[in-house]
Amino acid sequence: MPDLKNDRYLRALLSQPVDVTPVWMMRQAGRYLPEYKTTRAQAGDFMSLCRNPELACEVTLQPLRRYALDAAILFSDILTVPDAMGLGLYFETGEGPRFTHPVRTAADVARLPVPDPEQDLGYVMDAVRTIRRELASAVPLIGFSGSPWTLATYMVEGGSSKAFTVIKKMLFAESQTLHLLLDKLADSVILYLNAQIKAGAQSVMIFDTWGGALSGRDYREFSLHYMHKIVDGLLREHEGRRVPVTLFTKGGGQWLEAMAATGCDALGLDWTTDIGEARTRVGDKVALQGNMDPSMLYASPARIEQEVETILTAFGQGNGHVFNLGHGIHQDVPPEHAGAFVDAVHRLSLPFHQ
Amino acid sequence: MPDLKNDRYLRALLSQPVDVTPVWMMRQAGRYLPEYKTTRAQAGDFMSLCRNPELACEVTLQPLRRYALDAAILFSDILTVPDAMGLGLYFETGEGPRFTHPVRTAADVARLPVPDPEQDLGYVMDAVRTIRRELASAVPLIGFSGSPWTLATYMVEGGSSKAFTVIKKMLFAESQTLHLLLDKLADSVILYLNAQIKAGAQSVMIFDTWGGALSGRDYREFSLHYMHKIVDGLLREHEGRRVPVTLFTKGGGQWLEAMAATGCDALGLDWTTDIGEARTRVGDKVALQGNMDPSMLYASPARIEQEVETILTAFGQGNGHVFNLGHGIHQDVPPEHAGAFVDAVHRLSLPFHQ
Repeated sequence: MPDLKNDRYLRALLSQPVDVTPVWMMRQAGRYLPEYKTTRAQAGDFMSLCRNPELACEVTLQPLRRYALDAAILFSDILTVPDAMGLGLYFETGEGPRFTHPVRTAADVARLPVPDPEQDLGYVMDAVRTIRRELASAVPLIGFSGSPWTLATYMVEGGSSKAFTVIKKMLFAESQTLHLLLDKLADSVILYLNAQIKAGAQSVMIFDTWGGALSGRDYREFSLHYMHKIVDGLLREHEGRRVPVTLFTKGGGQWLEAMAATGCDALGLDWTTDIGEARTRVGDKVALQGNMDPSMLYASPARIEQEVETILTAFGQGNGHVFNLGHGIHQDVPPEHAGAFVDAVHRLSLPFHQ
Repeated sequence: MPDLKNDRYLRALLSQPVDVTPVWMMRQAGRYLPEYKTTRAQAGDFMSLCRNPELACEVTLQPLRRYALDAAILFSDILTVPDAMGLGLYFETGEGPRFTHPVRTAADVARLPVPDPEQDLGYVMDAVRTIRRELASAVPLIGFSGSPWTLATYMVEGGSSKAFTVIKKMLFAESQTLHLLLDKLADSVILYLNAQIKAGAQSVMIFDTWGGALSGRDYREFSLHYMHKIVDGLLREHEGRRVPVTLFTKGGGQWLEAMAATGCDALGLDWTTDIGEARTRVGDKVALQGNMDPSMLYASPARIEQEVETILTAFGQGNGHVFNLGHGIHQDVPPEHAGAFVDAVHRLSLPFHQ
């Protein structure tokens, strides 16, 4: 196993010294890149792209050919796990993801299997292996999953939601049913992420996109508790290396201390949290990833550079910062602005590591 | 001018002693009430209801006939101000509010008038006077406005938005144009709220529904700065009484200290913030309003009571708490659950005021 040529990303997640601040972009393989659209058209629909390891590898690598990114992230969808549980994932144009069989009752929950990753999600593991081979140790590969709470929102609502009416009815009126669902999802995610690690993912990230829809008490009980269980169940050493785990709750800026106490290595921050204040709050406990407003990429390269400098200064001198956007890159961003962003992070962060 | 029969709400906003914790519900005049639907059908569309002072008064009073609420809130819409600026507000079924003439350029901004409240928004002032008369000093009347930033999101996007793409492009690429718009809106809101106060509103609230979409730095520059300007420009004494001002930024839980420093009397909290921690953070500076998850009203009355007790306990002993939901009541809540909520606040809060 040859050593990584660029291990800045892994070092920063473990709060070790780096030459410059590593950077990657959430949803960096995506529709803002014309070459992505071409490959996607070749695949047919979105899930066919996810299910084709060669094409999933191709779109994973596309942004790395354009930009000096310090990590690749597996191209996939968070809803592969519920799909493998038999819910029948499909995408309605303009409507986002939908499930043919939403989960509504205790009987529905009891019926759900815990998927076997190599059997039921083999296409994801094949994609991980293919990408890892094609990366040829240039940069690390990030695996990922949705958080149990976030997956449950889609499974119970039957798709995307704004007010989370159905799942909140379950949460407040039938909390035991929801706990059973979340526990089964946590078990499934542990198997899924450990399989990604064994297949070659050198770091994993848990996306809790909708944890911010909960009160602090409910967040701890229905979202964080199950992410904590996952952190406890993950392979933390593989191929002789530590496998860092990053937790990201969008809208979770008020709960960073509790998130840091799970034993994860890093927290992802959305752009509403000041990264300097976050660093003060979590201390040396975890590294921080983030957190430029993705909409900043609409602005001029000069304005983008100014914002990068502001965020680097807010974080300050020292280790433990992975630069990123505060959420996924928007599909109508000019690709050259993403390039200006990545280059600015490397160039402007040099003085912060001397 | 007869004295208010029930002034708990005003006293709590000013952190004065009360017998029990006052309670009202954001969007308490709304579609969860069958009598509201009847009146709305009578009026025709939503804006016709807002523009008819007698019917606006009727729906304002409907929830007070059912529940022991401690305040009435003017029935209106936050977009009356942009409508009076000539943007052509209309409602598309299932799409929410739209504007015929969105604001996109510096010339668009320059062209916008600052509306004269009695001339251009006379129907609102007539509604305030009618409601105030019909209330007959039973409980205080709350006036309100959208925050400049929140109004600007609708004006620039042309309606509702999820990612705020157009206004963020303006924010990052043409911030001076946006500042001119926000400043004009702040001037308009000052006139609008002062006219409501003169017409009879005994307290005013500023709704910043979308401030939480900004980074902390951008929130202070593009939203809070203009709410601060409004607070400075408001009539704070009228009819021999202090007129309390409440600021509410949904998703603003990380910025409470800065909000409290504007000189407002109270902060509204959404349900993601722990009200006990919020009280520790803002100290005696402001009262707090909130903050039960509106979805809790789907649960049983027993579960609702338990949550009311939890929030009362989190706030603790003493003055300065107005109970409310953390956002507007959902339209599919059983009306008797709202009643259980209101009664629980009064009954369970008694020991916290002894």
